[in-house]
Amino acid sequence: MDELLSVSVGGAFTSGNHPVKVEDIDSLSQKIEETDVFLRKKGRDDAEGFGWINLPYQNLTEIIETGRWLSKFDTIVQIGIGGSALGNRMLVNALLPPFYNELETPLRKGPRFYLLENSDPVTATAMLDRLDLSKTVFVVVSKSGSTTETIAHFLWTWQRAKENLGTKAPEHFLVITDSRRGSLRKFVRARGCRSLEIPESVGGRYSVLSSVGLATAAALGIDIERLLQGAREIDQRLVMRNYLWENPAWVLAGLNVLHARAGRNMSVMMPYGDCLSAFAEWFAQLWGESLGKNGLGTTPVRALGAIDQHSQLQLYMEGPDDKFITIIDVKNRPYFKLPDNIDDDALKYFEFLFGKTMGELLSVEARSTTSALIKAGKPVVYLSIPEVSERYIGALVFFYEYLTALVGLLMDVNPFDQPGVEQGKRYIYSLMGRQGFEEYIGEVEQYFGKCRNIEIIL
Amino acid sequence: MDELLSVSVGGAFTSGNHPVKVEDIDSLSQKIEETDVFLRKKGRDDAEGFGWINLPYQNLTEIIETGRWLSKFDTIVQIGIGGSALGNRMLVNALLPPFYNELETPLRKGPRFYLLENSDPVTATAMLDRLDLSKTVFVVVSKSGSTTETIAHFLWTWQRAKENLGTKAPEHFLVITDSRRGSLRKFVRARGCRSLEIPESVGGRYSVLSSVGLATAAALGIDIERLLQGAREIDQRLVMRNYLWENPAWVLAGLNVLHARAGRNMSVMMPYGDCLSAFAEWFAQLWGESLGKNGLGTTPVRALGAIDQHSQLQLYMEGPDDKFITIIDVKNRPYFKLPDNIDDDALKYFEFLFGKTMGELLSVEARSTTSALIKAGKPVVYLSIPEVSERYIGALVFFYEYLTALVGLLMDVNPFDQPGVEQGKRYIYSLMGRQGFEEYIGEVEQYFGKCRNIEIIL
Repeated sequence: MDELLSVSVGGAFTSGNHPVKVEDIDSLSQKIEETDVFLRKKGRDDAEGFGWINLPYQNLTEIIETGRWLSKFDTIVQIGIGGSALGNRMLVNALLPPFYNELETPLRKGPRFYLLENSDPVTATAMLDRLDLSKTVFVVVSKSGSTTETIAHFLWTWQRAKENLGTKAPEHFLVITDSRRGSLRKFVRARGCRSLEIPESVGGRYSVLSSVGLATAAALGIDIERLLQGAREIDQRLVMRNYLWENPAWVLAGLNVLHARAGRNMSVMMPYGDCLSAFAEWFAQLWGESLGKNGLGTTPVRALGAIDQHSQLQLYMEGPDDKFITIIDVKNRPYFKLPDNIDDDALKYFEFLFGKTMGELLSVEARSTTSALIKAGKPVVYLSIPEVSERYIGALVFFYEYLTALVGLLMDVNPFDQPGVEQGKRYIYSLMGRQGFEEYIGEVEQYFGKCRNIEIIL
Repeated sequence: MDELLSVSVGGAFTSGNHPVKVEDIDSLSQKIEETDVFLRKKGRDDAEGFGWINLPYQNLTEIIETGRWLSKFDTIVQIGIGGSALGNRMLVNALLPPFYNELETPLRKGPRFYLLENSDPVTATAMLDRLDLSKTVFVVVSKSGSTTETIAHFLWTWQRAKENLGTKAPEHFLVITDSRRGSLRKFVRARGCRSLEIPESVGGRYSVLSSVGLATAAALGIDIERLLQGAREIDQRLVMRNYLWENPAWVLAGLNVLHARAGRNMSVMMPYGDCLSAFAEWFAQLWGESLGKNGLGTTPVRALGAIDQHSQLQLYMEGPDDKFITIIDVKNRPYFKLPDNIDDDALKYFEFLFGKTMGELLSVEARSTTSALIKAGKPVVYLSIPEVSERYIGALVFFYEYLTALVGLLMDVNPFDQPGVEQGKRYIYSLMGRQGFEEYIGEVEQYFGKCRNIEIIL
C-alpha cells in the first residue's frame, strides 16, 4: 500500500524544562483510544458537528453537475467568509497553477475565480469595476444565511445583477446554505435560483469537503472525486490503526495535549512550498476556532517555508520554548534545474547551487530547519506528503480535521461550536442599527469608551 | 497640526490575573526615557543597525531616477526574501489598487510587479512561462549578496537573460546590495549593470524606507517623497513628546514589556482592511526577528479584520489570556454604499444594512471586536490612522520600527541582529554540498535522524 503521509515525531520529545516524554504519551493511550471510539460513534450517528467524518462517502452527482454549470461562466465570484472561503482558497492555492487568474484561456482551463470575503469597500469597488456581469456567476455561501459580511456583498451584487440582467439575474447566482433554514434559503425559494445544501451536521470550518469547497473546485477543474478518494483512504487506514504508536493522529493528538499542558501555548504550522501557504490559513481557523474556549486552546501560528526562515525562525530558535512546531515537506516536487555552470567569475561563490534543482533546495531547507530546531531543543514534528495533488490533499485535509476534533475532545471542549463570537456580533448589529439589538448600544459604548479613555494622538 | 495616528490604550490595562496597571507603566517611565535617549544617540551616530532612523532624511534623487528607468519595462520582478521582499509586498498591498497585476494598462499606471521570494520550483516555473524577457527587469535584492534563495533565483534568471538577450542581459538587471562587500557587488562591477546601495547601518527588516523598498515603489507610481515625509513628520513629533503619557511609542513599549512579563507571550496585530494584511506580515518579521532571542520575545500573530472574526476571534475571546492585541482601524475609507432598499420579501431580514456604507460596516466591526475583547477581559489597543495613503503609511512604518527597537532595547536584547538563523544556514550549505561545510553533514544527519527515529507512515 503506497503512503499517504508520514509523520516523524522523534524530535517532539524534549528533555529540558517542561519535558514531554515517550512514556507521557503512553499514559494517555487509553484515554485517546476511548476518545477515538466516541468520535467514531458520533460520526456514525451523524451527530451535530460530527458530519464531516462522513463527507468522504457522499454522493457527488449534484455537486459535479453544478460544477459543470458553473464552469460555463467566464468568472466565478464566491461570496463567503471564514469556513465559507478558507477551504476554497486552500484548494485553489494547492491544486491550481500559480497566477491562475492571470493566465490566458488556453492555459487556464476553467473560469477565473475570486473570493469576496472581507467587508472591505476597496476590494468591493475594485471587484465591481472588473466584472462583466453577463459572464459572471456569484456563489453565495453561508450556512446560517445571515453572515453580515456575506450578506453585504450579496446585497450589492444582487442589486447590480438585477439592474444589468433584469429577469435573468437569478441565473447568475448559486446559493449554498442550510437545506431548510435561513433567509438565503427563503431567497432561493422565492427567486428559484440554483442552490446546494450544506449538510446540517457539518460546521463551517469542517466544510471544505462538502458543497462549500467542492462546487467551485469542480468548476475549476480540480478532481474532486480524487480529493474524496484520498480522504476515504486515510479514513479507512486510520480506522485500522488500533495501536497507539501505529496511529499518527493519536500520537499527534497526544503530543498536542501534552505540549499544551507543558505550557507550549502555540502550535506552529510551517509547510514548505507556496502552494501550501493557504493550507496553514485553513488550519489556523480549524484549530483556533475548534479549541479556543474555556480558557484553553493553543494558538495556531501560520508560517511558510522557506520564507519564514528569514522572518520567524530567529524567534523559533532563540525565543521562549513556547511552541510546538510542525514542518510539512513534499517528497516529489516539479523538476526545475538551476544552471549547470555559469561562466562568470563573480558568481563562482555560488557554484554549490549549479546543477541542483530548486525542489531539492526547498526540501533541504525543510530538513535543515527541522534539525536546527531539534538542536536548539525545540519540539518539532516533520510531516511529509508524497506530492501536492488531489489525492494527498484530500488525505491531509481529513487527517487534520480528525486530529483537531480528537484534540478538542481530549481537552474536554466542544470542537464544533464557537460561542465566543456572538458578543462581537451583537455589538455590530447594535451599531449598524439592527432592530432588537438596541440594548447593546450602551454596552459597546461603555467598553469602547473605556478604551478611548486614554487616547494619545500623534 | 493634523493627526498622523491615534492610539487608545484604555483597554490595555487589565485587572484579572496577571494584571497590568497604569502605575506599572509609570514605574517604567524613567527607563523608557533613558532608552529613548540611547536610541536617539545611536541613531545620530549612524551606529550599526540604527541607520533606519535616518532614512526619512535621505536624498531620493538616485532612487527616483532609478524608479523612472524601471518604470519603462512592462514587468518588474523583484528577487528577494525576508526583509528584501516583505516591505515591498506591504507597500504594494497598501498603496496600489487590488488586483493590480490583472489590470489593463490604462488602469494600471506602472509595470506589473512580481516578487520571486520562495525557493519554490512551482512558482519559478510558472514565472518563467509568463515572462517576456525583452520587456522584463529583474531587481535582485540581498544586502549580504549571499542569500541562498535569492541567489538561486538570480542564477536561473541571469542564465535565461543571457540566452535570450545576449550582451543586453545586464541592461535588464538592477542589483540592490551592500556598497562594497559581497558577490553581488562583484557581479555589478564585472557586468556593469545598474545598482543601488543598501546603507551599511540599515538591517534587512528595517530597510523598507531605503532603496530596498523605495526603488520599485517609485517605479509603480507610489509617491515615495510623501512616504518619507510621513516618516519625517512622525519622527519629529515623537522627538517632541518628552512626557510618558504624551508619547504613544513610549506607552506602547511599556505595555508590551509589561504584558510580556505578565506572561502574555503573543502580540496580535489585527488591521481592518485587505490593504493592510501585508502590513501585519511585515510587522511579524520586524517584531519576531528583532525581539526573539535570549529566550525572550513575544510571538507576532498576524490577523486580518474582519476576516479573522470568523477564524481567530473565538480563540482570542475565550482561549487563554496569553495575548496582547492591537486592532488597527482606518478613519476614512472609500465610499461604497449598499443598496438603499431591495424590494424583495426574502431579504427584508437584512434591511439594517440597506443604505449603509461598506466602510462604515468595517469600522463598526473593528470597534465592536475591540469592545467585545475588553468585555472579555483581554488586553487590547485600538490604533487608528486617518486614511491609507503614502503619508500615513510612511508614518505608521516608522512608528512601528521605532516601537520595535525601543522594546528590544528595553528587554536588553539587540534588536538588529539574527544570530539564530545561522545554524540552519550551515545545515543547508552542508546538505547542498557547499565547500567548507562538510563538517556539518554529520550533525544535521544526527538531528534529523533523531526526528526520523519515530516515523509513522500512513
